[in-house]
Amino acid sequence: MKFNNRNVYISPKAKLGNNVRIGDNTAIYDNVEIGDDSIICNDSVIGEPLAAYYHDSGYKNPVTVIGAGSLVRSHSIIYAGCIIGPHFSSGHRVTIRENSSIGERCSIGTLSDIQGNVKIGRYCRLHSNVHIAQGCAMGDFVFLYPFSVMTNDPFPPSIDIKGGYIGNYSQIGVHAVVLPGIQVGENCLIGANSVVNRRVPDFSLAMGDPIKIVMDIRKYVVMGKGSPYPWMNRFDRGMPWEGLGFDVWIQQNNRK
Amino acid sequence: MKFNNRNVYISPKAKLGNNVRIGDNTAIYDNVEIGDDSIICNDSVIGEPLAAYYHDSGYKNPVTVIGAGSLVRSHSIIYAGCIIGPHFSSGHRVTIRENSSIGERCSIGTLSDIQGNVKIGRYCRLHSNVHIAQGCAMGDFVFLYPFSVMTNDPFPPSIDIKGGYIGNYSQIGVHAVVLPGIQVGENCLIGANSVVNRRVPDFSLAMGDPIKIVMDIRKYVVMGKGSPYPWMNRFDRGMPWEGLGFDVWIQQNNRK
Amino acid sequence: MKFNNRNVYISPKAKLGNNVRIGDNTAIYDNVEIGDDSIICNDSVIGEPLAAYYHDSGYKNPVTVIGAGSLVRSHSIIYAGCIIGPHFSSGHRVTIRENSSIGERCSIGTLSDIQGNVKIGRYCRLHSNVHIAQGCAMGDFVFLYPFSVMTNDPFPPSIDIKGGYIGNYSQIGVHAVVLPGIQVGENCLIGANSVVNRRVPDFSLAMGDPIKIVMDIRKYVVMGKGSPYPWMNRFDRGMPWEGLGFDVWIQQNNRK
Repeated sequence: MKFNNRNVYISPKAKLGNNVRIGDNTAIYDNVEIGDDSIICNDSVIGEPLAAYYHDSGYKNPVTVIGAGSLVRSHSIIYAGCIIGPHFSSGHRVTIRENSSIGERCSIGTLSDIQGNVKIGRYCRLHSNVHIAQGCAMGDFVFLYPFSVMTNDPFPPSIDIKGGYIGNYSQIGVHAVVLPGIQVGENCLIGANSVVNRRVPDFSLAMGDPIKIVMDIRKYVVMGKGSPYPWMNRFDRGMPWEGLGFDVWIQQNNRK
Repeated sequence: MKFNNRNVYISPKAKLGNNVRIGDNTAIYDNVEIGDDSIICNDSVIGEPLAAYYHDSGYKNPVTVIGAGSLVRSHSIIYAGCIIGPHFSSGHRVTIRENSSIGERCSIGTLSDIQGNVKIGRYCRLHSNVHIAQGCAMGDFVFLYPFSVMTNDPFPPSIDIKGGYIGNYSQIGVHAVVLPGIQVGENCLIGANSVVNRRVPDFSLAMGDPIKIVMDIRKYVVMGKGSPYPWMNRFDRGMPWEGLGFDVWIQQNNRK
Repeated sequence: MKFNNRNVYISPKAKLGNNVRIGDNTAIYDNVEIGDDSIICNDSVIGEPLAAYYHDSGYKNPVTVIGAGSLVRSHSIIYAGCIIGPHFSSGHRVTIRENSSIGERCSIGTLSDIQGNVKIGRYCRLHSNVHIAQGCAMGDFVFLYPFSVMTNDPFPPSIDIKGGYIGNYSQIGVHAVVLPGIQVGENCLIGANSVVNRRVPDFSLAMGDPIKIVMDIRKYVVMGKGSPYPWMNRFDRGMPWEGLGFDVWIQQNNRK
């Protein structure tokens, strides 16, 4: 994407920081605030008005915030009322519905669909085509892989939705489904194609439909590789312990 | 999305009703008819020409109809030859291929992909990322959840496609697959991640890969909630029995 | 899509063959080469710059090639560095990341997501919503169906990715997952919703989670239809043996 400033719409009520670049055919609506040094690529919509806009003549767009240093790739749609931390990055054609909050340095992959009123912690990575139903939440350093889903309706169709929760550091495999209201603990690895229909305790390696706890993930040993989990000692790209080591970072931050 | 009338293309051969609003960067092609009070949001294409257009100089676009009071959200593509009833609503980036028919008051969610020659009844709701293969069909009040699929090719690849059918009031869970030519009865609930490889009778609670009939859904009782199915007695938002009660509506309409 | 030449951007450093048509709102970036008689539909981006572009002032876009006679449908994004053979066709909203190579006469369906550094042979058909992780590869005449996935990270998250491989003529069912580094042989049929967690030998009919080899596919007989596999004797649409017969074509080409 290049910045030719063709067919760009920026509301006079939007606030753009220093060195913000906006791609062609992109619209930035009322009450959007974009932090310094961010890039919003082409064909995107930031601050998409809520449904009330179409029939309420007094409609006022809620504040939408995208933190400094963010990169929103092309054809993405971020609704009004979302609060997104600094150094966010997205793939293409991402949809983030209203009133979702996303912590610092998260990434959300191509075609992912965040359905609104979702809470995502810090340093989370949602790969391509992840679907998060309304009212679901996750902690920090959570990774979800393609076509994984968090659902929210125990007895469809209903209006009694119950969002689930995924704890810090957990990894959710491709095509895995977290059923409504289910809690996945911290430091879990949920295998590909699993259906998580009951609570998964911390440090579980779990898989299957329905989900089965295979072992404590700290006891999982791979020939020639030792124990790959918890993963934080062997993976640090983009993490706050990069170049420092997880244990040192934990001590410095006095975190559990 | 706001209506700035930037970069809009409307064919002189399209017919737009009263109070139709068209978003920026949207194209409305030949022989499209859009009913009164409808909204077509930005970056959409209505009446997308069929493949013949690219090589047949005598190509004539088939008639495309979108009923009154509809809302097509942004980046959607609706092919020529589709006939869509009134009060339709779509999510973003929906694709509806040619010659599909969709009854009144249906909604089709973000990223859903209707492959053409599909028949969808009235009041159906397809959530995000539903894929319906060519030639498949469903009755009225059918709900499909994210990443569910209806397929059509028993021995891939082939040209002998057999579309399946889902009966009135049935609910198809996330990641469920209906195999080619399979009939799902009325009032069924198909669990998440199921593979429906054989006929499912009316009123089945069914799940698994391959699908198993768990029980008559009318006998399914949830502690503290009684029997949630059939669902029509406890859910009415947007349904024709809203505020009236399903039984009263059925009697008034003399339907089974 | 019609060619109104509205809001089109073509880099002066792009090379377009004879009779190339470009849809509205489309951008063709530096060092893109498009073969004769190709069509790039509306709202697409060809030669999307790599991530380095956003921070490297000396960035130079790698060469991107789209072969003659191709049809790229609307809202698609093809990154710089991709080399795509002649007679390619895509659905809508396809993403093909950098440095992927695709042989002649392939088609890639709506919403499919090719993650980069992927090798796809000749005459492959990826249906809608197929996800291919970085570094994966496949031979010729491979078909993948909706929501099927090739993955690449055995111990997520990691930087030690291992792409898998799918052999010539194999068919990968809807919602199937090929786990990292796994080899699927030639002439296999992988059932819907399978998880391929180990090597599948040539000529396997295989299904399940985890995958089970059901039988040699040449022994699979369908009542009234004989043996549908290998499929090449009964399906030829768009294949090089069309109207000729597979055996004759093989002999003419002296291939195994």
